[in-house]
Amino acid sequence: MRWHGVGDVRLDEIEAPALQEESDAILRVTTAAICGSDLHVLHGKIPKVPQGMVIGHEFVGVVDAVGPGVSAFRPGQRVVSAMFAACGRCDACLAGRHARCRQNRTFGYGDLFGGLDGGQAEYVRVPTADTTLWAIPDGVPDTDVLFTGDILATAYTGCVEARIEHGDVVAVVGAGPVGLLAVQCAHLFAPAAVYAIDMVPDRLEQARRFGAVPIDTTAGDPLARLRELTGGRRATVVIEAVGSAGALETAWRIADAGGRIALVGVLTDEAFPQTAGQTWLRGLSVIPVNGQPIRYRERLAALVGAGRLDPAAVITETLPLDGAVEAYARLDRRETTKVVLEVSRP
Amino acid sequence: MRWHGVGDVRLDEIEAPALQEESDAILRVTTAAICGSDLHVLHGKIPKVPQGMVIGHEFVGVVDAVGPGVSAFRPGQRVVSAMFAACGRCDACLAGRHARCRQNRTFGYGDLFGGLDGGQAEYVRVPTADTTLWAIPDGVPDTDVLFTGDILATAYTGCVEARIEHGDVVAVVGAGPVGLLAVQCAHLFAPAAVYAIDMVPDRLEQARRFGAVPIDTTAGDPLARLRELTGGRRATVVIEAVGSAGALETAWRIADAGGRIALVGVLTDEAFPQTAGQTWLRGLSVIPVNGQPIRYRERLAALVGAGRLDPAAVITETLPLDGAVEAYARLDRRETTKVVLEVSRP
Amino acid sequence: MRWHGVGDVRLDEIEAPALQEESDAILRVTTAAICGSDLHVLHGKIPKVPQGMVIGHEFVGVVDAVGPGVSAFRPGQRVVSAMFAACGRCDACLAGRHARCRQNRTFGYGDLFGGLDGGQAEYVRVPTADTTLWAIPDGVPDTDVLFTGDILATAYTGCVEARIEHGDVVAVVGAGPVGLLAVQCAHLFAPAAVYAIDMVPDRLEQARRFGAVPIDTTAGDPLARLRELTGGRRATVVIEAVGSAGALETAWRIADAGGRIALVGVLTDEAFPQTAGQTWLRGLSVIPVNGQPIRYRERLAALVGAGRLDPAAVITETLPLDGAVEAYARLDRRETTKVVLEVSRP
Amino acid sequence: MRWHGVGDVRLDEIEAPALQEESDAILRVTTAAICGSDLHVLHGKIPKVPQGMVIGHEFVGVVDAVGPGVSAFRPGQRVVSAMFAACGRCDACLAGRHARCRQNRTFGYGDLFGGLDGGQAEYVRVPTADTTLWAIPDGVPDTDVLFTGDILATAYTGCVEARIEHGDVVAVVGAGPVGLLAVQCAHLFAPAAVYAIDMVPDRLEQARRFGAVPIDTTAGDPLARLRELTGGRRATVVIEAVGSAGALETAWRIADAGGRIALVGVLTDEAFPQTAGQTWLRGLSVIPVNGQPIRYRERLAALVGAGRLDPAAVITETLPLDGAVEAYARLDRRETTKVVLEVSRP
Repeated sequence: MRWHGVGDVRLDEIEAPALQEESDAILRVTTAAICGSDLHVLHGKIPKVPQGMVIGHEFVGVVDAVGPGVSAFRPGQRVVSAMFAACGRCDACLAGRHARCRQNRTFGYGDLFGGLDGGQAEYVRVPTADTTLWAIPDGVPDTDVLFTGDILATAYTGCVEARIEHGDVVAVVGAGPVGLLAVQCAHLFAPAAVYAIDMVPDRLEQARRFGAVPIDTTAGDPLARLRELTGGRRATVVIEAVGSAGALETAWRIADAGGRIALVGVLTDEAFPQTAGQTWLRGLSVIPVNGQPIRYRERLAALVGAGRLDPAAVITETLPLDGAVEAYARLDRRETTKVVLEVSRP
Repeated sequence: MRWHGVGDVRLDEIEAPALQEESDAILRVTTAAICGSDLHVLHGKIPKVPQGMVIGHEFVGVVDAVGPGVSAFRPGQRVVSAMFAACGRCDACLAGRHARCRQNRTFGYGDLFGGLDGGQAEYVRVPTADTTLWAIPDGVPDTDVLFTGDILATAYTGCVEARIEHGDVVAVVGAGPVGLLAVQCAHLFAPAAVYAIDMVPDRLEQARRFGAVPIDTTAGDPLARLRELTGGRRATVVIEAVGSAGALETAWRIADAGGRIALVGVLTDEAFPQTAGQTWLRGLSVIPVNGQPIRYRERLAALVGAGRLDPAAVITETLPLDGAVEAYARLDRRETTKVVLEVSRP
Repeated sequence: MRWHGVGDVRLDEIEAPALQEESDAILRVTTAAICGSDLHVLHGKIPKVPQGMVIGHEFVGVVDAVGPGVSAFRPGQRVVSAMFAACGRCDACLAGRHARCRQNRTFGYGDLFGGLDGGQAEYVRVPTADTTLWAIPDGVPDTDVLFTGDILATAYTGCVEARIEHGDVVAVVGAGPVGLLAVQCAHLFAPAAVYAIDMVPDRLEQARRFGAVPIDTTAGDPLARLRELTGGRRATVVIEAVGSAGALETAWRIADAGGRIALVGVLTDEAFPQTAGQTWLRGLSVIPVNGQPIRYRERLAALVGAGRLDPAAVITETLPLDGAVEAYARLDRRETTKVVLEVSRP
Repeated sequence: MRWHGVGDVRLDEIEAPALQEESDAILRVTTAAICGSDLHVLHGKIPKVPQGMVIGHEFVGVVDAVGPGVSAFRPGQRVVSAMFAACGRCDACLAGRHARCRQNRTFGYGDLFGGLDGGQAEYVRVPTADTTLWAIPDGVPDTDVLFTGDILATAYTGCVEARIEHGDVVAVVGAGPVGLLAVQCAHLFAPAAVYAIDMVPDRLEQARRFGAVPIDTTAGDPLARLRELTGGRRATVVIEAVGSAGALETAWRIADAGGRIALVGVLTDEAFPQTAGQTWLRGLSVIPVNGQPIRYRERLAALVGAGRLDPAAVITETLPLDGAVEAYARLDRRETTKVVLEVSRP
């Protein structure tokens, strides 16, 4: 799946990637997913995406070849990839902040983010493979681990960095895949309740199934509804899981004095909905979030294994790779939510 | 000292305050200070300040009378007051966030902040005295404890909430009294270095004496200078200690990717210097800070006692109460920095 | 209910307590509970209990009278009491460690713990009432809040101080009332699983209902069983909720290398089951726990209100006050677990 | 330097180690140090040390050869080694707890600790080199970084895990090299004061130079002296930096109610000085500490670079490698404290 310009993605037949760096692995992709943030690429919202770049940063596969500097993996092993490659050795990585590694490169997100080709493809090259990949235990299906490389880790990191405390009133703005996983993750922190704010009935119903109280923005002001549901309160923690000016507007509106707003959705140039002065007077902390899939992979796997998280439940459609162009179109029209591409046999 | 309109403060002879609530104490003020944020009152920048309100939220004194609901104090005891009264019993207070107490009332800051008269006066009424006041040990001078009620606590809370880690690069924007105390407090967290950014030579020299590396904004771009001093780095933590659009501009400019900006200065309607999208891309956390004098009073007293903090060193002038009108004028012209008023004998 | 010697507790007709200190309240007790640690008093295990002391540190009631220093309560209000009185103003209290307040006095636990009479009585005197008591919202039954004053707070504090992380393997040693509430509280921290270790079938069944995996020590070695259930693991966190040498033995035995052992049960002179050297080599942290009912009362109330905790479910029997002597005997024979005494009408 | 039996260490001419595992590096050692815990090896106190094992887990050197799985280093680079090799990829390593890595192997500490030869030698084999080693910046002398691989990291980790808070009263038991570095590190946490307890005048004087208040145990009871110096207090945090029954005795004795005791010295089978019950009644947390050199290496380097730590100041003697046998003898007689061996030119 390559990007050729705004709104133009195509399934092209190209040469398979080869090993380039000593720490590289080549994966034969078995399963990939389309992320909501891939639509930003589609729309040309991400700067410096080269024409012809392969898209995709959510994928699992089988190791096909490894460079001489890879010691943890051998061809034939099933592995998950983080959405980005990181060195694993610098101060940021040692502190568990791989997203701030100076060598951080996101797959399929253009030159501003490191210039790697992505994983919506039959093969993908993965640098610093010892750090960037991890093994899939026998018997665990691809779809149980696929999202620990990106959206599950992002939702979870958002909840961690928002420092949800027991008894908090949590509101998740946007019940797309990241928002739905944020609903699941927020419950790990035992808030008093989790509210999910969206306008699409199916998404709200899904959020309800994951334990959220749905708030439908088409049915009235979400703040008024939140107050009604909570006996007059606002949200002590807001998870912004869309990445849009409208969602920021809602987040600021519903946040309680002294509250925390975690910005989980990908933003590029949206305005703040209030001034710094107003934000100060209300005491709202603003916390930009980058997912930490490497830091949290074992913990998330344990929680999925224990049945406390069910990431595969957000999948709305599973298609073969050659359905990807059509899938992008339908995602763009909001006719589907989370599409998984079956690329090859595990 | 009463406020009569924009730019108009006067020393009036009025009736002494009387006990009103059961939990009240009346203090005979011995020492008071003028806070930089009192200039916001002077300038009419704080909404809903009633004409005739007594100004001042930094004061210590001797208990003159107590209501029947006060059990911790008796007339004759020397005490410090927090800058605000708080109940001490609600969830926010029990969590050490007295500034978020629903009954929080700031002294001398107008009706928006609870409508209490302030302490630049011979007598002041202090509600919920058991929580709001604390005793001064024998032999400790007023000026060693005076600022634990406000600016020292504010500077310290800013450093705590900015979560300064060992080895961080800390920049304090503004070397006024709060900024200078933030320099002192930041050193308690063992950063690699603390940089103080200002334009007034005396303040920069004072910051240097407190262990900061001064950066003079009149001598060139502060970011260029910071990079020069650090071998190319930015600030991992910024303490904004002014409360102005210009200081916000500087704070955003010098912050490192993934950094934290603590907003310690009082803001009212200043704009953010960058969009939410730009702030997100750089991963800057924005943390509004309210000082927590009640939570940290014992700890700060211990640190002053141990010689690790020296709050009295920021005092530039000591005057009798009847020098207050003139002091406001000189503060407003930036001819002095921190004025302490000797009101009566301890 | 007064203690007259080892094994000898009696229901005596005595004069009602009167106000003594300015900060006192007198409560008319509506509901009280017998705590497992009251059996330590019964058995003479607690030093310096005066003959004739009224027992009991879990009680709720209606304010009957208040001293002049009480500002938060008026006669007629329904209130819960913490198991101890604390000043609310010292460094320990301000840091949320009321159990370490130098003026801390536990109700009905003898002179070593401050010499207060307890609450298994028609009336009880409560010092520093403004801090020690809190109001019961209208419509909330006594039994929903009764345990926030002691055993629920103790179980919760144990989980907090054990620093349970998402994905931990938690084992609770002892499924008595505190252990059962520890099972409930542990789930708030999203461990991989909670194991409850006991020998009494009813308790194990109750633990299972609260979400624990029961391990019956009469059916074999608990470590062998834990390994079987976890695929070869030990407990990363152990909550010792009995207070006996045998429970310590089990706790040390099942703990994983690098694990944390929270000592929640009341101990007096039990030996460590391993040397300091062995404990060091295994990296076991040992964390003595004192419940913090004042610090966590609002949070616990929110969690009970949200249905995340159900403390009343541990009650096995409800009796009038005059059934108390018999209840002690049956508790001592382990024929019942948690007895609540209905003393008067709310 | 090889161990041949209790009290018998010799400088033998043996074959240089060769690459064995893909992730190995071979270092030409430039500087090594003798650690106090090497005396445990000398004395046969560590079980399963094979006859002929090379001793030593503190060393820096120049990369001589690397296996094909090493991507971060090339021959000729100057590097520091952690005292143990760790995988860098498991859950424990990702959480910054490399000492709990299941593949953890300590250099020169025998088969119980992984069976690696140590670094008091001309050459040493370092497994999982990408994780275990880090580069020395140009111009930084060996002795500035040597201790970040072990004793500095151990002292620092002890202070971190003891959770020293601003204003704490810290006592370090033992002013040997680890104790002296604990004194330095404790100051990074801004306690009210640090007390160093020892019986050797030189060590106490050194501790004083690092900012501690010395307490000489030959001059009387250390608790009586501590109380005298603090106005009646005990230590809220104790760092046990010896690893002996006597030091444990002192630690328990001087600890304040509710205090934390960090066990930094290597223990093997020493008894607890009090029962579990007594420890519980006093509320003493017991925290066994393993140093985390990999987790904290960048932070420690920054603090050394900023002049906040001065590890080289604990060196009492610098000798060539062939002085090592004699050095062990003199260390054993406590005639010297910290010996550094200059093995080859950097």
